[in-house]
Amino acid sequence: MPQLLSKSLKVALVQLAATADKARNLSRVKEHVLKAASNGAQLIVLPECFNSPYSVTAFPQYAEYIPSGETTTFLSLLARETSTYLVGGSIPERDDTGKLFNTSLSFSPSGELIAKHRKVHLFDIDIPGKIRFKESEVLTGGDKVTVFDIPPYGKVGLAICYDIRFPELASIAARKKGVFAMIYPGAFNTTTGPLHWELLGRARAVDNQIYVIMCSPARDLSAGYHAYGSSMVVDPNAVILAKANEGEEIVYAQLESGRIEEVQSGIPVTTQRRYDVYPDVSEKVEPSAF
Amino acid sequence: MPQLLSKSLKVALVQLAATADKARNLSRVKEHVLKAASNGAQLIVLPECFNSPYSVTAFPQYAEYIPSGETTTFLSLLARETSTYLVGGSIPERDDTGKLFNTSLSFSPSGELIAKHRKVHLFDIDIPGKIRFKESEVLTGGDKVTVFDIPPYGKVGLAICYDIRFPELASIAARKKGVFAMIYPGAFNTTTGPLHWELLGRARAVDNQIYVIMCSPARDLSAGYHAYGSSMVVDPNAVILAKANEGEEIVYAQLESGRIEEVQSGIPVTTQRRYDVYPDVSEKVEPSAF
Repeated sequence: MPQLLSKSLKVALVQLAATADKARNLSRVKEHVLKAASNGAQLIVLPECFNSPYSVTAFPQYAEYIPSGETTTFLSLLARETSTYLVGGSIPERDDTGKLFNTSLSFSPSGELIAKHRKVHLFDIDIPGKIRFKESEVLTGGDKVTVFDIPPYGKVGLAICYDIRFPELASIAARKKGVFAMIYPGAFNTTTGPLHWELLGRARAVDNQIYVIMCSPARDLSAGYHAYGSSMVVDPNAVILAKANEGEEIVYAQLESGRIEEVQSGIPVTTQRRYDVYPDVSEKVEPSAF
Repeated sequence: MPQLLSKSLKVALVQLAATADKARNLSRVKEHVLKAASNGAQLIVLPECFNSPYSVTAFPQYAEYIPSGETTTFLSLLARETSTYLVGGSIPERDDTGKLFNTSLSFSPSGELIAKHRKVHLFDIDIPGKIRFKESEVLTGGDKVTVFDIPPYGKVGLAICYDIRFPELASIAARKKGVFAMIYPGAFNTTTGPLHWELLGRARAVDNQIYVIMCSPARDLSAGYHAYGSSMVVDPNAVILAKANEGEEIVYAQLESGRIEEVQSGIPVTTQRRYDVYPDVSEKVEPSAF
């Protein structure tokens, strides 16, 4: 069962204004993470593509090997320096075969790489007159559901941006692994953001009665891709605990022990599912899917 | 694939102020349905428990046998008289063994009973200081996913109120049966309504890219149970097409051919699901579940 094991957990979302200047991005990240840690954050989340522009031409240019690339080292040292759990949003990754991925790296307070998620569902959309984007032109999708332990708090699930449109990842993480939160670094845009960003975050929360943490880049109207911003933390009853505006900022939220249980007890969907009528999607997941 | 086969479909939701007077309820239903039909509605939806109070003490008193009870006959004649598809919200049903159910009956324009859904997930909630309600004290849950054809428009799925908290029913109906809409007669209350009614309707729409139709009773603060009202129709992109206030009223919406395909084509989640990573919940449903 989903459970936050500690009394509380302070989360910070760094809504970074990522630019084309990687060194500057990393330096700004460091500044914000140091600040968030000094404000007591125990889990710090960066946005999708925080060290590069979000574009199919940028991905190959900015891609790094993992763990030998500079951003892996940078994040590891920063987690250790601040003694925080650091969820490294995502970066373009190049593997040994030359394939590219949109990949999120998470680190423990001692700087250990504890999770790696490759975006499973590539962002391929085409809304005429509004937005067209095809990650699949250069990226390959991952094939894992990502869940990891962040003691003493419990387990969290992680997926990236467009992955949030596919409810299975959160359902499997909550039902089978008992995560207390799903974390989604994500860069929705000014078309899909107003339509669906908050809706999807709150939907994953209400259906699974877990926290949902979504971290976006700040909006930059001079960039090719206009991120929606609005990083947010949603509680297990789908109430928004904290929400950013569109600019660069850090938002904080305090997750509280017992809140999941309180919500589960009030509206006990977790024990009322009718697996005699329909299958449990979390039941038949292959162990190799994690 | 979900598809509305006709050029358009005009839907009317009758947000009835149901009372303890069954004869009066039926007479008001008739008035509203005649009016909706004369306004061109082709599919008319009534709310949950439209012919009785919503209470565990009322259910046994108001329960009827199906199809021999008066409400079945009433709805059949009304559908035929108006030549409309009539979704009879829900009524308390007593079966031959004495068991009680919360049951929805739907009729064709010729008055034929074309679908019967027994609420699968019973509304058993207990939010201290706010609301406690236990349908399971007197009701038995159904065990079917309900999908039916309403030619020439296509297929619809139907579930009742609390059923909407369980995403499987809509996913199965959309993926396996290609419904263009899920219909939820439902009586959320003034606690859970503001929290989750709109969220859940829009969540089922966005995840499945289908229409969602939700019909509530009007709010009556002199009754024991305070229904939320806010009957609504949500489009396949999760945009609210029509929404009632809290009082008695009819709301209308026009569903349009091609809208589902347009949404699917813009954000093609229906073809991007990764069944190599997680199972398709609609795949392993037993034929006996329908």
